[in-house]
Amino acid sequence: MELPVFYAPEIREDAVSYTMNEDTSKYCIQVLRHEKGDTVLLADGRGNKYTTVITDDNRKKCVVQVSGREQMPAPSPALRIAIAFTKNASRIEWFLEKATEIGIQTIIPLVSARTEKEKIKAERLQNILVSAMLQSKQFYLPILEELQSFDKLVATNRDAQRFIAHCLPEQKIALEDVMEAGKDTIILIGPEGDFTSDEIKTALAAGFQPVSLGDTRLRTETAGMVAAVIMNIKS
Amino acid sequence: MELPVFYAPEIREDAVSYTMNEDTSKYCIQVLRHEKGDTVLLADGRGNKYTTVITDDNRKKCVVQVSGREQMPAPSPALRIAIAFTKNASRIEWFLEKATEIGIQTIIPLVSARTEKEKIKAERLQNILVSAMLQSKQFYLPILEELQSFDKLVATNRDAQRFIAHCLPEQKIALEDVMEAGKDTIILIGPEGDFTSDEIKTALAAGFQPVSLGDTRLRTETAGMVAAVIMNIKS
Repeated sequence: MELPVFYAPEIREDAVSYTMNEDTSKYCIQVLRHEKGDTVLLADGRGNKYTTVITDDNRKKCVVQVSGREQMPAPSPALRIAIAFTKNASRIEWFLEKATEIGIQTIIPLVSARTEKEKIKAERLQNILVSAMLQSKQFYLPILEELQSFDKLVATNRDAQRFIAHCLPEQKIALEDVMEAGKDTIILIGPEGDFTSDEIKTALAAGFQPVSLGDTRLRTETAGMVAAVIMNIKS
Repeated sequence: MELPVFYAPEIREDAVSYTMNEDTSKYCIQVLRHEKGDTVLLADGRGNKYTTVITDDNRKKCVVQVSGREQMPAPSPALRIAIAFTKNASRIEWFLEKATEIGIQTIIPLVSARTEKEKIKAERLQNILVSAMLQSKQFYLPILEELQSFDKLVATNRDAQRFIAHCLPEQKIALEDVMEAGKDTIILIGPEGDFTSDEIKTALAAGFQPVSLGDTRLRTETAGMVAAVIMNIKS
């Protein structure tokens, strides 16, 4: 039987006991019916996996005693996706869930000329990342960065491999054929109306390589997920 | 400017004119505001792309005159995904949309021992496939087969490459490392509770190869989508 994993963002690495917050306590004790004496795992989202035993099954303040801590290997190389958030919130939320499951480490909401969504509900999105991390049995929480402008990102990013996926009928290589293993990598995914040709020029001048994600026209969130899968298997 | 594409499942290859059905007429004339004289494309879902001109912009029975027909190249090799449908309908609907965008040709709803969903809303799902086909500028509609039992599928499928993705900690090769290009391929994706060990034995005995879709634990619909991406780039 696999042990359940709960999120414990405030736990310290030297903790001997820990009190779950109210939401997590409720989920652990009331929903999943755990009791005093049960062994459960905690994830701090920073790579630590704590083995613990419930010592007080209070449904608002569940207390556990820590019996072990293991630092899981950090994902490497860094895989970052900068993506224009869709107007339809559920589409980008799906993307965040799937990118987390697949193992992407950083997501950057990108504000480009045609981005339709320039506000994000950070707390709601953070909860999606946490759920997907726990669901997929991972211990590193992806980083959701703050909104960033296309121009600033293109001018300042220094990842070893930099790609831009766009739909213009120009020469592009398939991402899976050009990406090299072992290098920190970022890819830019445009909004439904695509990047402008000026933006593409700016990115190419800054050293981004134009790539294709297949022969079909993909929605923004699908392009993001396809990129996540290819980056993960090629890294 | 790209021409819009509408679905015309009943059009004949030798048609000189065609009357859109009521839903499509409404969408074309009332929503997208097309008028008499506009050029629009039609897709029959069987690979034909028709170039047409609107001759009657009736919002219930839009009539077009066909000026050309082009048979698009058939996707090859065949890529099939047999997947246990999730209890949560929106998750599998999302998978159908994404698999269509990516270019999978056949989806088989699989009934295995732990499948939680054994009924499908065929018409609703068909509409999702059509929308995703049009959206992604494709002209072949994926085939959504009828529900099929795990045992029957495993016993009768004759695709050149047959894979089963499961979560048991047994020896598996990554799908991207074992799949060969140019061969008709099927992959089986299990339900949230995974295939049973008996089912896995049955599949292996029938010549299915066990494969992994990455190092993280994926939800059913995510596993299906990851398989779709990998199959597409490796085919």
